[in-house]
Parts: sequence; structure tokens; C-alpha cells
Amino acid sequence: MKRITKISDSAVRRLSHYLRFLDEFEAAGQRTVSSGDLAERGGITSAQVRKDLSHFGSFGKRGTGYPVGALRERIVEILGLGRTWRVAVVGAGKLGAALFQYGGFRRQGFEVVAAFDTDPAKIGRRWGEVVIDDVADLARVVRKRQIEIAIVTTPAEAAQDVADALVAAGIAAILNFAPRKLAVPLEVTLRDVSLTIELESLTFALTHRER
Amino acid sequence: MKRITKISDSAVRRLSHYLRFLDEFEAAGQRTVSSGDLAERGGITSAQVRKDLSHFGSFGKRGTGYPVGALRERIVEILGLGRTWRVAVVGAGKLGAALFQYGGFRRQGFEVVAAFDTDPAKIGRRWGEVVIDDVADLARVVRKRQIEIAIVTTPAEAAQDVADALVAAGIAAILNFAPRKLAVPLEVTLRDVSLTIELESLTFALTHRER
Repeated sequence: MKRITKISDSAVRRLSHYLRFLDEFEAAGQRTVSSGDLAERGGITSAQVRKDLSHFGSFGKRGTGYPVGALRERIVEILGLGRTWRVAVVGAGKLGAALFQYGGFRRQGFEVVAAFDTDPAKIGRRWGEVVIDDVADLARVVRKRQIEIAIVTTPAEAAQDVADALVAAGIAAILNFAPRKLAVPLEVTLRDVSLTIELESLTFALTHRER
Repeated sequence: MKRITKISDSAVRRLSHYLRFLDEFEAAGQRTVSSGDLAERGGITSAQVRKDLSHFGSFGKRGTGYPVGALRERIVEILGLGRTWRVAVVGAGKLGAALFQYGGFRRQGFEVVAAFDTDPAKIGRRWGEVVIDDVADLARVVRKRQIEIAIVTTPAEAAQDVADALVAAGIAAILNFAPRKLAVPLEVTLRDVSLTIELESLTFALTHRER
């Protein structure tokens, strides 16, 4: 596939949203959608939708809209979702366990094939088919199970060491839930999910809103 | 407090990050920080730091930097964190349980005082001090316990009805984990945490990166 590098993070996120909308249109039996349909579902302008989709070749004809199935397939391909991705969860606490058991990952093609912790009481325990491994064995397990994505759910103080170990093991994509900023090399893609930062943007809004 | 409305979402997020950095500087015994110190920790420019902080009055003197304690207190106040916020979790599944038990919330002043579900097998069960309530009782419980923030962890198909019920009950801030876009009135602040969308931005990067 043609490599696409000049697209912003927010455009990639919009593609993910379009994919969900297309699933809904498809489930409703709709065979074509207009940029206006997609724009309305996403709360953006139809010009933005047309611009986003124009990066990826031409779709549909003026007046008839985009074919739902073909556009969906194209976005699946662009996002790299036409395959299974092997994922590790590092940090086998409650959040790690919740993410491990989250059915949505598997439906989207993400298979959690390893879990790690440093706690001897957790190492060796089973999560379904997966036995929790020692973080000390991370490099070996990552290579053996061909893991490409890691989800970090350790406490803040352990997260940077874990990130360093993941990078050393060849992991190039990390989703970080630990409440601290991680340093990774430029070629590694890092996304942070910070629950307290999301909550703080709510309390800011509640504190400063018009009443 | 003076109401602050003209600040972007991303500036609010940076304030949350500055707060964490200031906590670290304070823990390390440092009494003043420069915009350069904060910029380096956050991977941004010191001009951006100075601009962000200039919205909130003048701090520190040229050459001596910002006083850590006073700047920290000011950001706590701006973000509305100088008090406890009462939170409800709607959707008592695994993710809801993990968030309920997440110690970080309480440390930051977020107290989960209610949990809701529609499943008769879950209603009436206890999570620590909290008894899981029926979603049908949401309005009554929200008012009685003076809840201001709701975390939605229901399946996608239930989330919009829950959001409507929350808004009707007077909730003005929602953190949504359900994998769908929610429609809420303009005066309600909504933040989405979408795990699969975060993962898709990783697979996009893995698929299109230089090798």
C-alpha cells in the first residue's frame, strides 16, 4: 500500500470516527453516504469530510455520494485494520485486567497475547489463555509472541523503565495509561490516555462556565 | 474567582501537565522553576509556557523563575481542584469497576459516590461503601448525593439514553468511555476516551511508518 505520512493526528482520529459512522450506515442498510451525512454524524463541516477523504483517492461521484462498503474497506486499509495486531498489557492491576477483558479490542482485531507484572503474587497467574509473565522476561516474550503494541498500565513510578524495556524489545507503538509523561525515541508512536487530565478539563469547564 | 473562558482545550491540558511537573519539582525540593524547566519536562517551547501562564496573572521575576508552591496553588485553583468533586459511574461492568477502584481519582479530589447499572444481578451489590443503583433511579440519586460529574462506561447502544438521563438530572460534565459519539446540549461539557480510536492511531502509525 502507498505510504501515507502527511496526515495530522486529528485527521487520523476523524478517519476512525468515519469508520464507526459507516458501520452504522451499513447496519442500517444504507449503500451510499454523502459528505453531509458523515459531517452531520461527526459534528464537523462537509468540506472537512471531503478534504479528509480526498487524501486517499477519489470516491463516489458528485450527486451520488460515497459507496458505503468501498469507503469503509478503504479506511480499514488506511488505518491498518485489515489484520490482527498482537498486544501486550504491562501492569496486571485492575485497569490492566479491565482492558484485557474488554471485548471491544478483539472485535477490532486487537489480540492481547501477553501480560506482565513485577509482583511475584501475580506472575504465573492466568488471565484466560494468558499467563502473567515477569517484566524481566519482557524482551524474550515480546519477540517470541511477535508483539507489536504495548498498553502500559503500571503505576507512574514504574512506567518509564517499562517504556525503555519495551523500546529495547522492539515495540514501536505504546498506549500509556500511567499518569506520567514518557520519553520514547522519535520513531516510537506514543499515545497517552490520562484519566485525571480528562477529569481536570471537566472541572475547569464546571468552574468557569456561565451559570 | 475571575471567570476564565477564553482558553483552548489544549491549553487546559497543558495546565494539567504543568501541575504534575510542579508536584515533581516540589517533591524534589526545588523552590523555583523557570519556563525552560517546565518546557523541557513537557517537550514544548518556553515561549508557550510563558504564554500559557501569562493568562493567569504575573508570576515570578525575570531571572528568578516562578515560585513552585504559589504557581502550583494558582493552577489548582484555575483547574477547580481546590475542592472535592462528587462523581457517578454509570455502567457497573469491568471498566466501571476498574475506574471505581482507581486510587488516583481520590488522590486528585474525585470521589465516586454512586454507581448505576440496568442489570438486576448487579443492582444492590456493593462496591466498597457504594451500593449499585438502578439507572431508573438516576435523577433522584444524582440530586440527593449532589453529583456533578458522570463517567459513562455502558455499552455503546445504551450510552445516548444514559447521557440524556444525566443531562435531564442536571449533570453538566460527562466523561464518556462508551465507543460512540454522544449528543449533549452545548452547556454540557463532554470528553470522550476512546480506547479503540487511540489504538487505531497506533496501527495507522505502524502501517505507514518508515522502515
